[in-house]
Amino acid sequence: MTLEQAAALDAADPLAGFRDRFVPADIVAYLDGNSLGRPLKVTRENLVRFVDEVWGERLIRAWDEGWMQTPTTLGDTIGRVTLGAAAGQTVVADSTTVLLYKVVRAALDARAGRTEIVLDTGNFPTDRYVLEGIAAERGATLRWIDADPATGVTTEQVAAVAGPDTAVVLLSHVAFRSGYLADVPAITAAAHDAGALVVWDLCHSVGVVPLRLDAWGVDFAVGCTYKYLNGGPGAPAFAYVAAALQDDVRQPIQGWMGSADPFTMGPGYQPAGGVRRFVSGTPPVVGMLPMRDMLDLVEEAGLDAIRAKSVALTSFALDVYDAELAPLGVEAATPRDPARRGGHVTLDHPAFRELVPRLWKLGVIPDFRPPDGLRVGLSPLSTSFTEVARGLLVVADELR
Amino acid sequence: MTLEQAAALDAADPLAGFRDRFVPADIVAYLDGNSLGRPLKVTRENLVRFVDEVWGERLIRAWDEGWMQTPTTLGDTIGRVTLGAAAGQTVVADSTTVLLYKVVRAALDARAGRTEIVLDTGNFPTDRYVLEGIAAERGATLRWIDADPATGVTTEQVAAVAGPDTAVVLLSHVAFRSGYLADVPAITAAAHDAGALVVWDLCHSVGVVPLRLDAWGVDFAVGCTYKYLNGGPGAPAFAYVAAALQDDVRQPIQGWMGSADPFTMGPGYQPAGGVRRFVSGTPPVVGMLPMRDMLDLVEEAGLDAIRAKSVALTSFALDVYDAELAPLGVEAATPRDPARRGGHVTLDHPAFRELVPRLWKLGVIPDFRPPDGLRVGLSPLSTSFTEVARGLLVVADELR
Repeated sequence: MTLEQAAALDAADPLAGFRDRFVPADIVAYLDGNSLGRPLKVTRENLVRFVDEVWGERLIRAWDEGWMQTPTTLGDTIGRVTLGAAAGQTVVADSTTVLLYKVVRAALDARAGRTEIVLDTGNFPTDRYVLEGIAAERGATLRWIDADPATGVTTEQVAAVAGPDTAVVLLSHVAFRSGYLADVPAITAAAHDAGALVVWDLCHSVGVVPLRLDAWGVDFAVGCTYKYLNGGPGAPAFAYVAAALQDDVRQPIQGWMGSADPFTMGPGYQPAGGVRRFVSGTPPVVGMLPMRDMLDLVEEAGLDAIRAKSVALTSFALDVYDAELAPLGVEAATPRDPARRGGHVTLDHPAFRELVPRLWKLGVIPDFRPPDGLRVGLSPLSTSFTEVARGLLVVADELR
Repeated sequence: MTLEQAAALDAADPLAGFRDRFVPADIVAYLDGNSLGRPLKVTRENLVRFVDEVWGERLIRAWDEGWMQTPTTLGDTIGRVTLGAAAGQTVVADSTTVLLYKVVRAALDARAGRTEIVLDTGNFPTDRYVLEGIAAERGATLRWIDADPATGVTTEQVAAVAGPDTAVVLLSHVAFRSGYLADVPAITAAAHDAGALVVWDLCHSVGVVPLRLDAWGVDFAVGCTYKYLNGGPGAPAFAYVAAALQDDVRQPIQGWMGSADPFTMGPGYQPAGGVRRFVSGTPPVVGMLPMRDMLDLVEEAGLDAIRAKSVALTSFALDVYDAELAPLGVEAATPRDPARRGGHVTLDHPAFRELVPRLWKLGVIPDFRPPDGLRVGLSPLSTSFTEVARGLLVVADELR
């Protein structure tokens, strides 16, 4: 019956045709599109064309023919297609970790005299680790919110802890483990009421949850492009810096590519105007290529339609869980309310640590997240309902 | 006669056959292999195979099948093939700028109580800018060596300025403008005599000048992979950290991928053992692909043979300069002694700023470096003597 429901949902899915655009794999179910998005077929051809016609033929001249501007031109595309950000506020560079370091340092300096950084215990390790390092080197104090896995970080919690000493609040839009979707506009307003700046980590929402960073008054954001933007393993990250802040902030890694005039090569660093100053080294042009293809696809499909399918996929996964997995003692760690849920579902069972490697061998590919979570990440343009059903039925079979 | 000499040199060149391995371009002469190495034909096929068979087929499983170790496995290859570095001391990550920031911060902290950083006015902008930023944030003092363009930074200059307050000496092995080749072992010893640590920027020597980092007692080094390692525009950089130092140093950008156990995802950052702690974010796997092909080629050709051809190419370029360009008022900014010269030659003339864009249109592609330098970068495996002759003869024609 589960497979029949899935077939009916696939038949009615207006985005079903997009699955053919991805490179096929000899597997049963890819349930990890939120960790590593699948490659598009067109990416193969575009990589070859890049090598032959751009890198190979234009050679160094290509830096003057567009490469130099890739951090901001590609950033603007991400801003328009996924972030709800006007041009000139988004830059592609580095990794999420390095960009987090830069924007949190910049935010902290922009609130000189304030000594506290607010974060939560449930955030992704790199977010916590980066902030521990910054707190130690800058003499700041970390104020930890103890996030309830069931409800995530609430506006009330932020309002309670943010105060006159708070410089920065760093949170994730979608919790990497539970999939809980935070209320960005309300929490941002609560941070601003305390005079603090906010940094949002969008790794698990960009490309699957519509964002309105400009409208929500967000100060800074960072995010990753190898999940729902299918940029390939280790693709460069992006940072958003609200236009109103840009000229008053500085980031600590002063490189030539973020200077006002890189090819004057003169003495004394002067930061570039605008968001460009958040660039440090040479733009990672090769690593920026695959994500362009997915951004085209996201724009073609429309982010609202993608979100609608995402909600349908996670709702269906929870239906299959109720029918097949809850009776086996599995618990759902993900909010039931779709308005508070991102693009993935996490299911807990003590057997999952041992089970996931076996699932991988069977061609059913979710993620494992400690202590006992099986994380089912459903990238809407590359995932069918049948894939969800088949994958979760194998999980149930293996548990039995 | 110049063209006849070139033809004879090409006929006698044991490495001439390697040129066929590169993607052809519809140009007269590529004289900028030191800014952006050309792509190899095999890179096209390897990128497609990667998309289809690794990323597309193994999907997230590939992280457990090698990707996670790429920073150190690829680092070890760079160390073995080019750096004279035993395994476990080299890591591929980030950009040169970001790695410079990390290693200089680490070196400065490792010499706590010392407050001075020694650098030279002729170093590449990003090196100077990064250190200005670090000095400002850490309250360190920059001690500038005024490098003579003709002789570069000398051991005597370093010995004169490095003292009991010197924490770090940062220099480039090959000067980006003049091509001057610094005496790494002697300068490293002079810095050590003062109790300081050295950081060498190898951007313009890695892959073209044989290195012996272990034997020379170097503490830290960074370098770029898109020049003589043909990694493609913006390919990730590498850092070398001498084994003896690794457990006593910390870098400031504490990310999950440089932690002791990334997938425990527990509270509290603990650095990984060894050079891995210099990693911060997710390894840039796609951007790491093309350089592997060139490292294979460098190993096949042998770095000593590559250096011999490099010296022959730059010597020939200076011969052509003597015959054709010196009479037109052009000056050579590059050392005549091949033992003090890297892989490129810089020629100065006030007309070059305007001339270089015209040369590019004519398919003769050197670089321009202010105030009036035409930089001729000769990547040995992809450059013929005939190409050098043809290119410089066009420069002479255009000057006349």
